Amino acid sequence: MKKFVNDPKNYVAEMLEGVALANPDSLRYVPAYNLIMRADAPRADKVSIVQGSGSGHEPAHVMVVGRGLLDAACPGDVFAAPPMDYVYETAKLLASPKGVLLLVNNYTGDRMAFDMGKEMAEADGIRAEILTVNDDVAVQDSTYTVGRRGVAGNFFVIKAVGAAAEQGADLDEVLRIGRKVNDVTRTMGVALTACTPPAKGSPLFELGGDEIEFGVGIHGEPGRERRRIKAADAIVDDLLEAVTGDLPYRSGDRVALMINGLGGTPISELYILYRHAHRQLADRGITVGRSYVGEYCTSLDMAGASLTLVRLDEEIDHLLAAPAEAAVRVC
Amino acid sequence: MKKFVNDPKNYVAEMLEGVALANPDSLRYVPAYNLIMRADAPRADKVSIVQGSGSGHEPAHVMVVGRGLLDAACPGDVFAAPPMDYVYETAKLLASPKGVLLLVNNYTGDRMAFDMGKEMAEADGIRAEILTVNDDVAVQDSTYTVGRRGVAGNFFVIKAVGAAAEQGADLDEVLRIGRKVNDVTRTMGVALTACTPPAKGSPLFELGGDEIEFGVGIHGEPGRERRRIKAADAIVDDLLEAVTGDLPYRSGDRVALMINGLGGTPISELYILYRHAHRQLADRGITVGRSYVGEYCTSLDMAGASLTLVRLDEEIDHLLAAPAEAAVRVC
Repeated sequence: MKKFVNDPKNYVAEMLEGVALANPDSLRYVPAYNLIMRADAPRADKVSIVQGSGSGHEPAHVMVVGRGLLDAACPGDVFAAPPMDYVYETAKLLASPKGVLLLVNNYTGDRMAFDMGKEMAEADGIRAEILTVNDDVAVQDSTYTVGRRGVAGNFFVIKAVGAAAEQGADLDEVLRIGRKVNDVTRTMGVALTACTPPAKGSPLFELGGDEIEFGVGIHGEPGRERRRIKAADAIVDDLLEAVTGDLPYRSGDRVALMINGLGGTPISELYILYRHAHRQLADRGITVGRSYVGEYCTSLDMAGASLTLVRLDEEIDHLLAAPAEAAVRVC
Repeated sequence: MKKFVNDPKNYVAEMLEGVALANPDSLRYVPAYNLIMRADAPRADKVSIVQGSGSGHEPAHVMVVGRGLLDAACPGDVFAAPPMDYVYETAKLLASPKGVLLLVNNYTGDRMAFDMGKEMAEADGIRAEILTVNDDVAVQDSTYTVGRRGVAGNFFVIKAVGAAAEQGADLDEVLRIGRKVNDVTRTMGVALTACTPPAKGSPLFELGGDEIEFGVGIHGEPGRERRRIKAADAIVDDLLEAVTGDLPYRSGDRVALMINGLGGTPISELYILYRHAHRQLADRGITVGRSYVGEYCTSLDMAGASLTLVRLDEEIDHLLAAPAEAAVRVC
């Protein structure tokens, strides 16, 4: 295994310490519950937005804690749900009189932890709601999921509910917005290589030298099928066909288009994918109104990418355009 | 080769098209000269800032064109300098009455192209200056360089001169600031794997399963030595020793700390490196005043990282804090 790692047991804790040290004014790291929270959270005048999930998907979710995004993220270990009592403690730390929205990507382990954490918080009188994200069109059920998986499209739910909460929306309204965005968001991914979890030290699965996993999950779980690798444009055509047919997205629609890198793919390749997707959508009469190219939800060092579409209306467009500050930034 | 690529000959052009399509209001792509420029450039009230270099280092430099950063980038093919006439045409397109600053990372091929492009522009009456960046402490001369190489620390020069130009500084003043930032910036990198240029289709060099290249160049050219891989913290110690001893950086200094990913390394690992570097600097009495973690100057899909320090004073700190907008962004 060739990684920048010390003891793999400390992988997540050391990463979180790094995130906190790099953002001393805006973020707080709470080692006892493995969480990163905004230094100014909870605020009495806004709903707190919290997301948990396994680690290994960075920048999701610990690096999108900040103004207009998440108030806190409570990650589990690599590819493992957070313990339910960490979810509970996070909800307590983030308790606002306006309530707490718990975002969960749809994996069975995460849902269990969050359902139980929410019940424990409610027993303490904390008002909390859960919103489940399930944007992945690849498979109906999966290795770790009843129903569809939640993947990179999750970013748009975070951005929209984060903006709404910042603008003072109450819990019911934030929940309505989150559901609305999730309902018009669809994603499909493809892996060129497997990923290597630090604690395992070897690739999680095997892919032949000319094979790709079409519809791959963000933990390397199988998608729709193994295929022979094709030219970039042909791969985009396949991803677009899976995504656009699902909602469906139609001529006249205005969309946000995201090309998300899975961790080991350089951004130059992501823009090559973006180019063809943008043009193919234009040919179908679908206008790209907002574009997102980079890493949003990764799978450790996996080479690969996912394509996400969000159908925009005035309300969603406005929320996606609102100011936001993440730990991940360029300037 | 497992990459998202069509015909490798079109790799750069397709990437540039993607960048332009994703930023239709702010950027313009000029295929004839392989350049990306701000849609509002040149502006009569500011010095134009231009950088060229080989491609394959994205986001450097085509994705850091924008307000407060570059006015244009004219990349060559992958790991190849731009042709001199493209530099000349770029200088003409960006000609402002206040002049043009041409930034060059120190590689012999790039310097030749820019020296000649500048001469051709001056013959047309365009006022231009060249600023050479050479922040890499790894080797004194290298495969492609007389003198030290220019690598990720280049970002800080761009950010500072971009801010100064935006604030109305004249060409002499912008040049003074760029030289000043370059003089207090030092970088050292390490590769865990080789990179694969699309046109070659196989790794550019071989590294054993337990080997790293300490002091690697961003084209995969050799650094100081091959070593056995170590724990992340020990690698940071070695990078810090090389960097801090060079200026040197001393107790009482306030610095910007960048951990730059080389393309194939996930951001989680970069924060593990950041954590130890930040703490080690604190132990030496050196305060990290500004932090930068992510990809700034890559080497295609190479797994690896570099560490950069910039000694801050009030002027540099102010310029690095100025507003800026890059094509690469999260929200």
